[in-house]
Amino acid sequence: MKSEKLKVESSKYILRRPYVKVIVAKNSGFCFGVKRAMEMAYKYAKEHPDKKKYSLREIIHNSQEVKKLEAEGVKHIEKISDIEDGACVIVSTHGVTPTEKNRLKEKHLNILDTTCPYVKKIHLIVKHLAESGAQVVIVGDKDHLEVSGIVGYAQAPPEGKGVSVISEIEEVKKMRVSAQIGVVAQTTYNLVKYMEITKAIMEKAFAQGYAQVSVHNTICDATYNRQEETIKIAKQAEIMIVVGGKNSANTKRLYSLSREILKTVYHIETAGELKASWFKGKKIVGVSAGASTPDSAIAETVKKINEIGRKHK
Amino acid sequence: MKSEKLKVESSKYILRRPYVKVIVAKNSGFCFGVKRAMEMAYKYAKEHPDKKKYSLREIIHNSQEVKKLEAEGVKHIEKISDIEDGACVIVSTHGVTPTEKNRLKEKHLNILDTTCPYVKKIHLIVKHLAESGAQVVIVGDKDHLEVSGIVGYAQAPPEGKGVSVISEIEEVKKMRVSAQIGVVAQTTYNLVKYMEITKAIMEKAFAQGYAQVSVHNTICDATYNRQEETIKIAKQAEIMIVVGGKNSANTKRLYSLSREILKTVYHIETAGELKASWFKGKKIVGVSAGASTPDSAIAETVKKINEIGRKHK
Repeated sequence: MKSEKLKVESSKYILRRPYVKVIVAKNSGFCFGVKRAMEMAYKYAKEHPDKKKYSLREIIHNSQEVKKLEAEGVKHIEKISDIEDGACVIVSTHGVTPTEKNRLKEKHLNILDTTCPYVKKIHLIVKHLAESGAQVVIVGDKDHLEVSGIVGYAQAPPEGKGVSVISEIEEVKKMRVSAQIGVVAQTTYNLVKYMEITKAIMEKAFAQGYAQVSVHNTICDATYNRQEETIKIAKQAEIMIVVGGKNSANTKRLYSLSREILKTVYHIETAGELKASWFKGKKIVGVSAGASTPDSAIAETVKKINEIGRKHK
Repeated sequence: MKSEKLKVESSKYILRRPYVKVIVAKNSGFCFGVKRAMEMAYKYAKEHPDKKKYSLREIIHNSQEVKKLEAEGVKHIEKISDIEDGACVIVSTHGVTPTEKNRLKEKHLNILDTTCPYVKKIHLIVKHLAESGAQVVIVGDKDHLEVSGIVGYAQAPPEGKGVSVISEIEEVKKMRVSAQIGVVAQTTYNLVKYMEITKAIMEKAFAQGYAQVSVHNTICDATYNRQEETIKIAKQAEIMIVVGGKNSANTKRLYSLSREILKTVYHIETAGELKASWFKGKKIVGVSAGASTPDSAIAETVKKINEIGRKHK
């Protein structure tokens, strides 16, 4: 990816009268899986106008988008027990465990499954790994919905070697290792960190003698490109604005990756949170956004930054 | 492994009147696979006194041992075509390709297969990898017999993705990578270098998107322990003597690992090659030896070093 490509190319973010240089990551905003899920959900809501409709947990980690879907009659709930039998339910992009899926079926619900296809692929991989007798290691955020779903599919059969979730490299030290290990990553994990962690796992496993470690790169392309681009922009910018849900793992990751390069990084959900004081004396502003951030939030952020720039002139 | 353990503990190397401090790696000399092969070969030679007997290539990479076996009537030859039908043939510790094995069978030879069980295990692993559609990567010395044998077993079926041999990390750059890769190491490769190479392979494969890389630690324990111990001794010694066949890959590896730490490292096959001038002013001498180096060669080396030490007093 060449740095020229990092300029604001997409017409939707171009400022007609720029007062400040804003570099927006091209790979910001809705990824394939999120776009697909939102389209599916709106279509589904229209097709079932008279039915009770629920979204099991946030369909994507963006509260503005969750509210917009609620306006279409899809109520966001956290527990399966809150859904009455026979209602409509949307399974979120992050997926559910096989046990949860069975519970939904038992309640005779009309199910729309918006699980990201890349997450589904991980379900299949860990299921196969567990069945082949491997210890499954999932590299990702312990409390994240996507990871809980994957853990469910990796729940080892009796002959299996169990499941471990690793969020940071330090945790490898305490991890038990068996002779056959299969490793996968949360789709939004960082590839560089994933490589470091898998190397540490191999070192530990191999110190015990013969061992087989299979590593699957399950980080999605959109994540990889977005993170790489965000890092490059952070290196050029004087201030970085990361737009996205406060509980969005991939947005938080963009924030922390930027913070490794730049001190002045802010994570906002909406343009309303921007403060003029942040931008005093700053000439180059970088903007990146998570996979669950709508284009409108990015466009409003860029507009607001420019307005602040005009006032500072 | 604690450093106390690195002192000369084995009674066979203890000097009764030491003139110089000699630290001998405990894990030096014949490994399990070599010991097993030599015992098998001598027994076999005795059991077939009246037959023509051949060793297909060096049974182990130590010319002194090859000569000793020739004295028992086992002639060392390089080509299968040099063996007459119906004769006795010993397959070396390094193994042969399936094609070569078939050729031996076609000649109705009486075969003694001394292939190291750890090498046999690699044959099975790469065969399985190739059959499952993976690209097989063998990390080791391109021209080594063990590697040629493994390549034979990794020869992909029509649906396979081929075989690559990587000796050094730089070669990964030029290597083609497919979405499914299985990696094994020559039994005598260095684990640290193997980890670096596998990481580079993963980085390259993962940069293309989804890929699965399974890494098998096929470096044998004896190799690992010997290399680790040799490195520790080299850190304490002022001069290092590595004893073993000049064409022994694992001995050469001990030499190069020592050379990364110490300038004064010498690779000898027999004590007769030792030069008094090397030891002038040196008070601590390290000694290590390859898996195919007989105990007698190590003992003679230690004795000779001490004699030189006495003369320097």
